[in-house]
Amino acid sequence: MTTTTDFLDDAAASLGPRGLTRDADLIQPWLTDWRGRFTGSACAMASPASTEELSRLVRLCASHGVPIVPQGGNSGMSGGATPDDSGKALLLSLRRMNTIHEIDVEARRVTCGAGVVLQTLHEAVEDKGLRFPLTLGGKGSATVGGLISTNAGGSQVLRHGSMRALVLGLEAVLADGQVFSMLTPLKKDNRGFDLKQLLIGSEGTMGIVTAATLKLVPAVADRVVIWAGLPSLGAARTLLLHCEDMAGDALEGFEVMPQACLDAVLRHLPDARAPLAGRHAWHVLIEVVADRTSAATLRERCEAMMAEAFDKDLLEDATMSASEAQAEAFWLLRESVAPAERERGPAVQHDISVPVEKMPAFVEATGPMIEAEWPGTEAVAFGHLGDGNVHYHVIAPHVADGLAWQKTDGKAISRRMHDLVTEWGGSISAEHGIGQLKRDELARLGDPVALSMLRAVKHALDPQGLLNPGKLI
Amino acid sequence: MTTTTDFLDDAAASLGPRGLTRDADLIQPWLTDWRGRFTGSACAMASPASTEELSRLVRLCASHGVPIVPQGGNSGMSGGATPDDSGKALLLSLRRMNTIHEIDVEARRVTCGAGVVLQTLHEAVEDKGLRFPLTLGGKGSATVGGLISTNAGGSQVLRHGSMRALVLGLEAVLADGQVFSMLTPLKKDNRGFDLKQLLIGSEGTMGIVTAATLKLVPAVADRVVIWAGLPSLGAARTLLLHCEDMAGDALEGFEVMPQACLDAVLRHLPDARAPLAGRHAWHVLIEVVADRTSAATLRERCEAMMAEAFDKDLLEDATMSASEAQAEAFWLLRESVAPAERERGPAVQHDISVPVEKMPAFVEATGPMIEAEWPGTEAVAFGHLGDGNVHYHVIAPHVADGLAWQKTDGKAISRRMHDLVTEWGGSISAEHGIGQLKRDELARLGDPVALSMLRAVKHALDPQGLLNPGKLI
Repeated sequence: MTTTTDFLDDAAASLGPRGLTRDADLIQPWLTDWRGRFTGSACAMASPASTEELSRLVRLCASHGVPIVPQGGNSGMSGGATPDDSGKALLLSLRRMNTIHEIDVEARRVTCGAGVVLQTLHEAVEDKGLRFPLTLGGKGSATVGGLISTNAGGSQVLRHGSMRALVLGLEAVLADGQVFSMLTPLKKDNRGFDLKQLLIGSEGTMGIVTAATLKLVPAVADRVVIWAGLPSLGAARTLLLHCEDMAGDALEGFEVMPQACLDAVLRHLPDARAPLAGRHAWHVLIEVVADRTSAATLRERCEAMMAEAFDKDLLEDATMSASEAQAEAFWLLRESVAPAERERGPAVQHDISVPVEKMPAFVEATGPMIEAEWPGTEAVAFGHLGDGNVHYHVIAPHVADGLAWQKTDGKAISRRMHDLVTEWGGSISAEHGIGQLKRDELARLGDPVALSMLRAVKHALDPQGLLNPGKLI
Repeated sequence: MTTTTDFLDDAAASLGPRGLTRDADLIQPWLTDWRGRFTGSACAMASPASTEELSRLVRLCASHGVPIVPQGGNSGMSGGATPDDSGKALLLSLRRMNTIHEIDVEARRVTCGAGVVLQTLHEAVEDKGLRFPLTLGGKGSATVGGLISTNAGGSQVLRHGSMRALVLGLEAVLADGQVFSMLTPLKKDNRGFDLKQLLIGSEGTMGIVTAATLKLVPAVADRVVIWAGLPSLGAARTLLLHCEDMAGDALEGFEVMPQACLDAVLRHLPDARAPLAGRHAWHVLIEVVADRTSAATLRERCEAMMAEAFDKDLLEDATMSASEAQAEAFWLLRESVAPAERERGPAVQHDISVPVEKMPAFVEATGPMIEAEWPGTEAVAFGHLGDGNVHYHVIAPHVADGLAWQKTDGKAISRRMHDLVTEWGGSISAEHGIGQLKRDELARLGDPVALSMLRAVKHALDPQGLLNPGKLI
């Protein structure tokens, strides 16, 4: 195709040898998503080094009608950074734009490029006695741009919110190559609605995030991790309210798992010990943190909180981490749930949310329903109760071909689960995003008014439909 | 005009006698803005009682091409709720939609209609031991819908953010009459970008807010108000950082005023006493609050904070409220600055923000500049230092005709001030909004890329341009 050849010649001239490659060996690792569910192809991979280079490139794409698939660490869960298989799209890596421009210790914020890896960011601000309060499993590869485009969550959302709450300023290249530049944060600014919100969570379909100014918080000076055993998920919700009331903003984590999950984890980690002596229907991990101004009274406050919880009969048993090593050991149990579940055999996973207060009733109502409709399956819910966000896995019965099961029964179960979530006023994507994985389910179940707003704004900002086509909408 | 007559007949039939009036006496009070700067006219005033009624009405407007000017308490500062003088627009009062639907004490949130008055909301949630943490001078008339449409601020933004941070769920009628319904809050939801952000701060130009679910916080159990005297605004900024560090989230207010402002207030309030014995270049009001879980140690923590501030030489003098009556007396001084300034004679006012850390340098650089360029004027800055938002008044020299001065020199001063704010990376509207007052200044000084995004989204959501025409953009 002449147009493509012309485009690639122009792009190569504009970006230089490090900025554009057509070498299949170099591109290939980035054409399959992290979970291996989607593979696409691309006419080339561009790696601009600056916003100006990217702006020129996007203008070129716009004039040649070349679709763009932006990509950060390629560790998304929904195929949002994988091109389709037409080979027409340009794969756009933001990974070279990885400069940390400024850490303002007084104002507690950092300005950095979209390609900065989360773990690098953590380490850079820790050196200044500060913390970027968002973390997740993929922190070694996930980039700031990807985290913003997908409004990433993680295990500290309870206190600090998801990425949206942490983005103070933003820079992005729009579909016509213009640069939207709002990196300098104003705490108060009422010149119309907050335009940067269009770019947070829109998965690269409205613009390409190139840099951001992010909120930082004081470093954690000390923490206590509590492990508690409870008779039900409803009891866990009551305990959560008690902890919110007593610990306030110091409460950073409130994670739940059923006994079956813990059993799987203990099989998966032969050296690990169960935190409690007995068995309990549900287990809860509670994290309470303190900065240097509140560290002195942390343990005492946690003890008072738990003593009152015992007095009020809010739990069956509990233990408190006596050291940082024990705190880490408790977290390792929580973080091993997903790999331990994978060892149990083929399953379908759901990343869903319902209103926080409905979560216990939702899990109690829907688990038995799924297990009855698909005999032999096991429905397992675990995760962020404090956010109304539970990872809901349904494990296959003993089947000969797990892959075939996933494509038939598994698919039907997911549809059913998404129907149920929608009936309960929830979201089919709590934190992993829509990407290509759930695009059709969103079209099927999304509120028609919300979808028509999304499409109208998309068409207004990207009339040619060149930004990450086939994702989200 | 037949179309208008047809429209009014249809609207009257649809809304019933309480829902539509053409009585000039009833409409007239709502055609002039609160500050008396803008007066318009309207073909009628509609007061629908429900979202369904409003949806039908907006469909009717869309089919007849009738512009709509939504209005809450009519206490905005920028003429955003006043129609133009063509008489073509329908004035839309949301004041009948004033039901508080639910206060969920456990989940700490309230769902209510757009017409609920702020003070009514405060009282309703106080009855449940909770607090809606946003307050401002117009609380007796400002409505929830107006506060959301203008992303209102006030004196608790430092800790709790402006309206945007408090809106958990939203319902609105769009330009074609469809109802956007996202009242049930999901703490985590990644189905595209957060659509409700389009409606917060867009001044009724993208949709008409009909109801909201708002965040509540625990009631204040105790508070301490500190009054401090300082040598400079830079010193106030250093003291602010110290207080943020020591008090953390308990710091709710940090307001500044120069000695001249305090002098004017003391003339204005003959019964009031100066909090400190001596004179200081700048005065600071600091509010620290506690809920019931932290009230016991509040005073002690404030004393430690101030003792360390004295040790570090961060201030010249300070006093701490010994009672709630004294706390109120300190706040009365702050709240009387605007009326006291008005007594000093004709002036032009500016509601501006710059990045928080630049505020002292901005005030120190620009005040003398304005006073030199317009001899005899006095530039006075006071307000929310912690938010980088200062109300910047420029008082006229002794002139015979204050109104004429405001229209000539005053206008030139405002242009100059807005130029300076823009040069410093700030906003010409920190909290009062654009409305019709600053629309042309926004067009002149706004970032062209941001303005083109605003216009593109506006055109996509309201292609006929019927929602609050002539405001914002």
